[in-house]
Amino acid sequence: MQRKIQVGILGATGMVGQHFVRFLQNHPWFDLTWLGASDRSAGKKYRDAAQWHLGGETPASVADLVVEECKPGNAPPIVFSATDASVATEIEQAFAKAGHAVVSNSRNHRMDVDVPLLVPEVNADHLRLAPIQRGGRGWKGLIVTNPNCSTVVLTMGLAPLKPFGIRRVVVTTLQAISGAGYPGVASMDIVANVIPYIGGEEEKMQQETQKILGDFEDGRVRNLDARVSAHCNRVPVVDGHTATISVEFSSKPAESDLLEAFRSFAGVPQQRKLPSAPPVPVIYMTQPNRPQPRKDVERERGQAVFAGRLRACPVFDYKFVAMGHNTVRGAAGAAVLNAELLVSEGLV
Amino acid sequence: MQRKIQVGILGATGMVGQHFVRFLQNHPWFDLTWLGASDRSAGKKYRDAAQWHLGGETPASVADLVVEECKPGNAPPIVFSATDASVATEIEQAFAKAGHAVVSNSRNHRMDVDVPLLVPEVNADHLRLAPIQRGGRGWKGLIVTNPNCSTVVLTMGLAPLKPFGIRRVVVTTLQAISGAGYPGVASMDIVANVIPYIGGEEEKMQQETQKILGDFEDGRVRNLDARVSAHCNRVPVVDGHTATISVEFSSKPAESDLLEAFRSFAGVPQQRKLPSAPPVPVIYMTQPNRPQPRKDVERERGQAVFAGRLRACPVFDYKFVAMGHNTVRGAAGAAVLNAELLVSEGLV
Amino acid sequence: MQRKIQVGILGATGMVGQHFVRFLQNHPWFDLTWLGASDRSAGKKYRDAAQWHLGGETPASVADLVVEECKPGNAPPIVFSATDASVATEIEQAFAKAGHAVVSNSRNHRMDVDVPLLVPEVNADHLRLAPIQRGGRGWKGLIVTNPNCSTVVLTMGLAPLKPFGIRRVVVTTLQAISGAGYPGVASMDIVANVIPYIGGEEEKMQQETQKILGDFEDGRVRNLDARVSAHCNRVPVVDGHTATISVEFSSKPAESDLLEAFRSFAGVPQQRKLPSAPPVPVIYMTQPNRPQPRKDVERERGQAVFAGRLRACPVFDYKFVAMGHNTVRGAAGAAVLNAELLVSEGLV
Amino acid sequence: MQRKIQVGILGATGMVGQHFVRFLQNHPWFDLTWLGASDRSAGKKYRDAAQWHLGGETPASVADLVVEECKPGNAPPIVFSATDASVATEIEQAFAKAGHAVVSNSRNHRMDVDVPLLVPEVNADHLRLAPIQRGGRGWKGLIVTNPNCSTVVLTMGLAPLKPFGIRRVVVTTLQAISGAGYPGVASMDIVANVIPYIGGEEEKMQQETQKILGDFEDGRVRNLDARVSAHCNRVPVVDGHTATISVEFSSKPAESDLLEAFRSFAGVPQQRKLPSAPPVPVIYMTQPNRPQPRKDVERERGQAVFAGRLRACPVFDYKFVAMGHNTVRGAAGAAVLNAELLVSEGLV
Repeated sequence: MQRKIQVGILGATGMVGQHFVRFLQNHPWFDLTWLGASDRSAGKKYRDAAQWHLGGETPASVADLVVEECKPGNAPPIVFSATDASVATEIEQAFAKAGHAVVSNSRNHRMDVDVPLLVPEVNADHLRLAPIQRGGRGWKGLIVTNPNCSTVVLTMGLAPLKPFGIRRVVVTTLQAISGAGYPGVASMDIVANVIPYIGGEEEKMQQETQKILGDFEDGRVRNLDARVSAHCNRVPVVDGHTATISVEFSSKPAESDLLEAFRSFAGVPQQRKLPSAPPVPVIYMTQPNRPQPRKDVERERGQAVFAGRLRACPVFDYKFVAMGHNTVRGAAGAAVLNAELLVSEGLV
Repeated sequence: MQRKIQVGILGATGMVGQHFVRFLQNHPWFDLTWLGASDRSAGKKYRDAAQWHLGGETPASVADLVVEECKPGNAPPIVFSATDASVATEIEQAFAKAGHAVVSNSRNHRMDVDVPLLVPEVNADHLRLAPIQRGGRGWKGLIVTNPNCSTVVLTMGLAPLKPFGIRRVVVTTLQAISGAGYPGVASMDIVANVIPYIGGEEEKMQQETQKILGDFEDGRVRNLDARVSAHCNRVPVVDGHTATISVEFSSKPAESDLLEAFRSFAGVPQQRKLPSAPPVPVIYMTQPNRPQPRKDVERERGQAVFAGRLRACPVFDYKFVAMGHNTVRGAAGAAVLNAELLVSEGLV
Repeated sequence: MQRKIQVGILGATGMVGQHFVRFLQNHPWFDLTWLGASDRSAGKKYRDAAQWHLGGETPASVADLVVEECKPGNAPPIVFSATDASVATEIEQAFAKAGHAVVSNSRNHRMDVDVPLLVPEVNADHLRLAPIQRGGRGWKGLIVTNPNCSTVVLTMGLAPLKPFGIRRVVVTTLQAISGAGYPGVASMDIVANVIPYIGGEEEKMQQETQKILGDFEDGRVRNLDARVSAHCNRVPVVDGHTATISVEFSSKPAESDLLEAFRSFAGVPQQRKLPSAPPVPVIYMTQPNRPQPRKDVERERGQAVFAGRLRACPVFDYKFVAMGHNTVRGAAGAAVLNAELLVSEGLV
Repeated sequence: MQRKIQVGILGATGMVGQHFVRFLQNHPWFDLTWLGASDRSAGKKYRDAAQWHLGGETPASVADLVVEECKPGNAPPIVFSATDASVATEIEQAFAKAGHAVVSNSRNHRMDVDVPLLVPEVNADHLRLAPIQRGGRGWKGLIVTNPNCSTVVLTMGLAPLKPFGIRRVVVTTLQAISGAGYPGVASMDIVANVIPYIGGEEEKMQQETQKILGDFEDGRVRNLDARVSAHCNRVPVVDGHTATISVEFSSKPAESDLLEAFRSFAGVPQQRKLPSAPPVPVIYMTQPNRPQPRKDVERERGQAVFAGRLRACPVFDYKFVAMGHNTVRGAAGAAVLNAELLVSEGLV
């Protein structure tokens, strides 16, 4: 095969940055050669700059890389952004202007009208915003984003059902602690407890879902005309966000129609066999008590979303459960899949 | 004061029975003098018949009581039923027929048209079924029931809002492991995990809520004309069921109306100052991340329900969080409050 | 009864300070009227200065107290010190010099030769250091300290056995997360995990134990002539430190001798019926799988230590388990008991 | 390469049996073609006979295998025994007599004088008991065993230090819930709790360690002349037993000697590059707070043991921490490595 594409990470020392480092190990297309972080870390070896919080030890392939400042300069063509929201706007724009493809996990540009908010199985065509973004902003590079971690689970769960006309959605999440970074949630707050609140999360789920499930028409994304209400909770689970979902449809599908829709669902990543695409993006489990985060989250390298318990809802039409890996499919794995989509589209 | 009323427990050795034993310690009206259990336990001292699963050790006041068979015989006038559903129907009816007030936590008779399904703050007037039950069945005693543990949290949370016309409710629960008895949920299934399924629980919540919030009219309880959809989950919390609730009203109340309704809510137990009545039955917490089971569940002896996070719902009118102690307010404490209500009504 | 003694808290807004606030509610001798904290908090009402981390809400009795700076000035005669180690030395000395009895939970002065390191059931006679401290330092007030939380569990467990001649002790702790304050241990580090390290803890246990179990002779405390080795671990338990202990004795006691020693153990707090003294300071449990933190820690208001599983040790003479409440008996409750001892000795 | 060796599992439907099924997936030497279980399961497909408790779903390669009775008949040459102790003696002997190599995880034959209790890195030479066993019992097959899960962690941790003359060992374990099988430990007993007791575990650790670390001399295994004392605790961890270990040596090694011993340790499995042998059997971690079960247990497929925190012990010579995967290196993975050793020795 041809030479690998060099990639870098903005905000490489933080928790999300570490997830990128781990997910990019042995990637068939990408070679992680550049790590950017704050001034405080720049100039240090990665092993010294980053206290490794994930399992095992700092991967040997990056342990001795010297961390750089988050400035375009000699950065590679694709940079994954795991920067903090407080600085992401400026840094990401600087890289895009300098010609880099910025594949961002930060929330800052997600709702910009000219920035694709991608779930490649769901809305790969939103990449048609790319030339509009470049033209409008005068950039050689571009910014694409992936959704908030809980939004990915919801939208992957809903996408197979979109043809039936989604009108109203009530969703409650049971979210893992890894979603809050490090140190994140204090153990005194969550051991044997539930926190019925995650700042800003409900708003993000409600807004992002409408954009992701919207259609690209006339040079812009038209939001899905559906109402979404989210209740977000933190639970003492390490990895994996669970969502209980009630949905009202404009059509009146049979339960078997919906099951068939889950089972036959696939998208561009599957068609093109992108390296980080799960063969089956939404795995419907038939056991009555599944999916479960601790037992299912690591399957398919964390890149699939699991659904189950589809049944009639006394209030709306149907209800079901969805679960996915918040730091993989909901963050680093989502962004890497976005980058693969960009490459397959010839946008890098 | 006058002499205490002697009370007993049917199914005293199981987990719910133990909660009754603990809650009845030092009760100002009731004296626990009789413990019934299966043949296997009958004839043994309680300390030997029951492996004590709650905190501390078997209370000294009952440790040496000899367990009896679950037959009316010399049982006291009030018996609390913690019997297993597989035998509760027959046992409870035998005691009611023999003249005992059976205050049951079992599900068997909850939905019988002539059996009150009581939450004393909410529907004390459903006790008007008592003479109908006695007349119809030819019993000297009677059976009253309390709801399923998760239903109590939901109905206590909804009751203050009933005047605004509840039409549709979508509720998701995050339920504690103590709700499943002993040994109950295997640790391998729930440590750092979520189980998105509790057998039969959703149906119970949906049906019981309509009966509890219904009105007594023309000699019967007319179910509340509202649709309820429940998603029930088990989470690794010891005590305390949390519920996220979205509600549609037939009127269009302001948020301040609902807050005022929570704050001013009280019922018969508060008016009569029943010994196990919480002074404020629904405590509305204003902190954005409360109530939380581990931090709030033991307040008010576990007899209050806590609400919080009232806010507009993009799908329905409002959404909020409720939380209550599943083995106290949702089981033993609920039944003891029912028994106090019976006494205060002169029904014992 | 006579008027209560006014008391204050140094470092009232932190986690340990909050434990003092809670433990002092409704104290029969002491009236909490003064709260000291850092400049940042001074001048604010306590409810605003301290984010309440314990169960329920900020106690009403202190919610509106205005927090003061940690300067003697108008502080009451007894001050409990929950100040951070980085500032405790200076603050505590200033208060002692100004005539206050400083009852400290901080580690700074514990090992000073003229400062009593008290476990009142074990070494109340170490208070004979008080006049020596006052004379030597020229203070009108004084400083007394309580041990590190894990040391309390170990020394209370060993104290009944001291008459048999303790020579060598190997102890492993399984410590609760509440011992690390707030935010303390990150949930990502401890949910479903063990951390086999607590900075400085092993050294503290090893040194403090020798001083506490030492004898006051010739105007000073002679350390116990025993070797102690500690292995300290953090486990996902909320409250309650468990310790497994192997002990070598200079005599060869029978197991029944040791059991009798546990059961008959009592000290000055029990003799004088100090208000915070547990009636039985070391409760020996006979069940094979007890004590357990979640099930036993709240008994006796958290002021007793629990022992169990005494059996022969193939390496040393005997081994057993001890468990106690780290934030009560190991911190706030320990200090309040120390203050009661001071009062009963006429030292305040 | 040559054809794979067919293998089977006795007790295939239980929790340990499922671990064998999982560990044997894609094994380069062994082909799992036979599953034995109780009469109740015999005749059913494995997917129906066994409720799959591990992550994901029943592996496709065995899901449709029909479970057989545990009788030699057509069973393959190697059978892994995961049978319950109540029946293991009879079943295992029947298979050994019929010519099968029985590689057992059950405790029944571990302490038999003619049965090897193997940790291949430590005592591969104990296989010299094989001809003695066959001769003495008149068997064509044989039985070899692996230790109890906690013993594996201890003996792998001690083995590198054996040359320095181990005399006394005090060990405390913090054991994962998966060690208790399914349903195993009730969640009400272990969520946010510690159980300071595991029935029979301490005796097993004490006895088995002496045999494993003993030398084969004069046709038998002479136990290590060392005293071992174990304190066994259950903690809310999913996989991975942690042990804190204090050791007295007959020589006086320097700390650097011990570190070097850990780092250079290897055994027969490494020399022969057996497929399930970890490249480095004991991985010494230098971070002060490692190893940790949740973060390290899955490394090296769960087949390595991790050590750390080596330091002087005030009571004995040194103390340290060891941790290993109880259901892999402590059970299924241990037995598969034993089988590989048998094959490499020509004993199958």
